[in-house]
Amino acid sequence: MDPASAISIDVMGADGGPGPLIAGLARLARKRPDLRFLLFGRADAVAPLLRRRGLTDKCDLRDCPDVVRMDDQPARTLRERRQSSMWCALEAVKSGEARVAVSAGNTGALLAMSVFQLRKAPGVARPAIAVHWPAERPEEYNTVLDMGADIRADALQLAQYALMGAEYARLSLGQETPRVALLNVGTEELKGPEILHEAAALIAAIASKDAARFSFIGFVEGTDLTGDRADVIVTDGFTGNVALKTAEGTASFLRTTLRDAFRHSWASRLAALLAFTSLRRLRKRIDPRRVNGGVFLGLGGAVVKSHGSADAIGFASAVELAARMAESDFTAEVASRVGKLDISHTVRSAGNDRGA
Amino acid sequence: MDPASAISIDVMGADGGPGPLIAGLARLARKRPDLRFLLFGRADAVAPLLRRRGLTDKCDLRDCPDVVRMDDQPARTLRERRQSSMWCALEAVKSGEARVAVSAGNTGALLAMSVFQLRKAPGVARPAIAVHWPAERPEEYNTVLDMGADIRADALQLAQYALMGAEYARLSLGQETPRVALLNVGTEELKGPEILHEAAALIAAIASKDAARFSFIGFVEGTDLTGDRADVIVTDGFTGNVALKTAEGTASFLRTTLRDAFRHSWASRLAALLAFTSLRRLRKRIDPRRVNGGVFLGLGGAVVKSHGSADAIGFASAVELAARMAESDFTAEVASRVGKLDISHTVRSAGNDRGA
Repeated sequence: MDPASAISIDVMGADGGPGPLIAGLARLARKRPDLRFLLFGRADAVAPLLRRRGLTDKCDLRDCPDVVRMDDQPARTLRERRQSSMWCALEAVKSGEARVAVSAGNTGALLAMSVFQLRKAPGVARPAIAVHWPAERPEEYNTVLDMGADIRADALQLAQYALMGAEYARLSLGQETPRVALLNVGTEELKGPEILHEAAALIAAIASKDAARFSFIGFVEGTDLTGDRADVIVTDGFTGNVALKTAEGTASFLRTTLRDAFRHSWASRLAALLAFTSLRRLRKRIDPRRVNGGVFLGLGGAVVKSHGSADAIGFASAVELAARMAESDFTAEVASRVGKLDISHTVRSAGNDRGA
Repeated sequence: MDPASAISIDVMGADGGPGPLIAGLARLARKRPDLRFLLFGRADAVAPLLRRRGLTDKCDLRDCPDVVRMDDQPARTLRERRQSSMWCALEAVKSGEARVAVSAGNTGALLAMSVFQLRKAPGVARPAIAVHWPAERPEEYNTVLDMGADIRADALQLAQYALMGAEYARLSLGQETPRVALLNVGTEELKGPEILHEAAALIAAIASKDAARFSFIGFVEGTDLTGDRADVIVTDGFTGNVALKTAEGTASFLRTTLRDAFRHSWASRLAALLAFTSLRRLRKRIDPRRVNGGVFLGLGGAVVKSHGSADAIGFASAVELAARMAESDFTAEVASRVGKLDISHTVRSAGNDRGA
């Protein structure tokens, strides 16, 4: 297969097994008959599904005996799961057989394996995880990064996140000139940690160059994650993870509270029955598992994490996004943009001493 | 008035003016006929309200011509609003006339004026803002601090927040031995910034002493803010502010989405009508303005911030909390506990070099 049209897919490890994922591929194959899929999984489980869906000709199925489990410790999978479908799917990107990998499995393991196998792209200080965050515009999403969770980012890393996030928003959501913002505790100039002010100066300098294809709107607050002020919101992995988990917790709390409210009286029980369709639509929109998907940016290859509970529609859209990333050679494009930044000059002109 | 029974109250500056606040005092006066209130506000507006509510005998009303507005810049109010009801209410605590002040006005101005006038309590490295966070237990709340927003906290400050937060949870929510946790990006030992691991060792050492009246359960995640794992969740002011604003944004987003869902069809419109009471109860519980209240801990006097849109019930409960803080001499109690900690010893035994 031509790497530009081949997508490497780990079809094991999702909550519902390979069934919904193969159904998603069938769905996507009707919409995009040009695509070819390089599948990694247990052949005895997957091959019959491909036959039933008429996908055998579109897929190259490689038998992998082992599967990464949802409760596997990420660090241990690097040693113990090298025969797994997840590992082999990433290896196909490393070897150049495919440009992008998709998995609905264990997020931590996927990140650990991706960094280990694909390494950082040239010039990238630190890779980032970007997610689509439900936003107030109908059927729209904001892009938020980093969700990497472990450590704080410095000003240069935040500036690279801004650049990578803007490219990703353009490709995935069709936002031609995304409005990029830094997450802070207030929108005034004087507020928040010094490092965010350094990053703001740096991002403003990058955005003002011709090459930059985004606008920088400064600082936003946590309330703007779901809002319409910015398209791309940049933060360090620690803060991003806390915000994501807080939003998930809030959504889950409200679902429970709403359910209890609807049990309160006969009228509210009847209301719940009548509202069933609306509530199902609402649940679909706010389901935190849908936000859990994401892409890993800044690696030597593209990796799309579909949510573990993805249904056919969800998985089809994850693979379609992966296809667009492969076709546009997203990884090389981002690496070239990050590499072209004359960071030392930009940093000096932004007025701090990093470039000295 | 005896300072132990006098509560200093700024009755101006709330969204709805003094009316709802005076109604709240009338409500509380029936429940707690022993209380006396030292009121600061415009006499021409407030005195008639007191007469109508039969509160004239219970209140000592001091005429203040000026009012801090919701859109005033906090730093400027320190110079320009020294005749305001907010300033004078805090001055009464500073002078010893009252032990605690309550205001429903501009949060930033109240914090700036409180720190300026009351200063830090002896031994406290940095004051903190604590809020009650709606939690999954019915009618229950968790205590989360710091919401101070501006800068990161070090391990010692986080440990003091743990101590102050536990004391506040005991007083305000009646939790005898609160379970205290640190907000992190994972619950495993290895995750998150080094400073949180230092703080964890320090808090564990404090909790293991006889004097400590809380248990330390280690790290929790953003999802646990609304959960039942911990009663008191400690974080730095930056992260706390991002989490609070993210939760507010999520709640607001879900309200909008729910409203839209209910407009979708005739059945869902009918459902919305039937569900009206339940939905109103839900809204009351998740209203972010209710979470916006809080207390300032670690100052040389207690300050309770009621939410700006407080109704009579909400304001009565804020003043009742203030009364309990005054009666238990909460400020002195917390200062004594923080002061008694042999921090240098504790830090050494927690195995880092801060005490060296």
